[in-house]
Amino acid sequence: MDREDHHLLAGRPRRFSELQVPLGSVTPKVLTESLRAMCRDGLVTRTAYDEIPPRVEYELTPLGRSLLEPMAAGCAWNREHLAELLAARTASAR
Amino acid sequence: MDREDHHLLAGRPRRFSELQVPLGSVTPKVLTESLRAMCRDGLVTRTAYDEIPPRVEYELTPLGRSLLEPMAAGCAWNREHLAELLAARTASAR
Repeated sequence: MDREDHHLLAGRPRRFSELQVPLGSVTPKVLTESLRAMCRDGLVTRTAYDEIPPRVEYELTPLGRSLLEPMAAGCAWNREHLAELLAARTASAR
Repeated sequence: MDREDHHLLAGRPRRFSELQVPLGSVTPKVLTESLRAMCRDGLVTRTAYDEIPPRVEYELTPLGRSLLEPMAAGCAWNREHLAELLAARTASAR
């Protein structure tokens, strides 16, 4: 899951809902935990604005941004080869 | 662990012991399970030669070989940034 929400943050800071909607299948609990872990690892910052209604935004740090390229390589491999891997897995299960 | 034994296979087919020795900290059980999973996923082939003593070799498939590049990107990021990530993790734990 970290991979997809990472890409969502590539463009600009995002609110929780702006991450949650595109990641439809991800529960709020998992998204919260992932964002918390990414903040803990210095990949993302969480900024709470003292406004009414309260606003919280998540943004990639330089360290987080440096991860975009290797993750893109992994995602590209995935798009190109995942079907082949899953077919091998199915064949070996027979 | 898959990442490191994957690279060991990049050059030529390897025997179990040729993988186990450089991966010192990996138990035979974990190495066996990892190799079995990589065979199941079509990334590695296992060939048993009808010889005395018996000889078994593991070799990357084309699908396995295609994974070397994105994995190298991940390993390069790791070498360059892991210390920074772990420092952030330690700082956030205080």
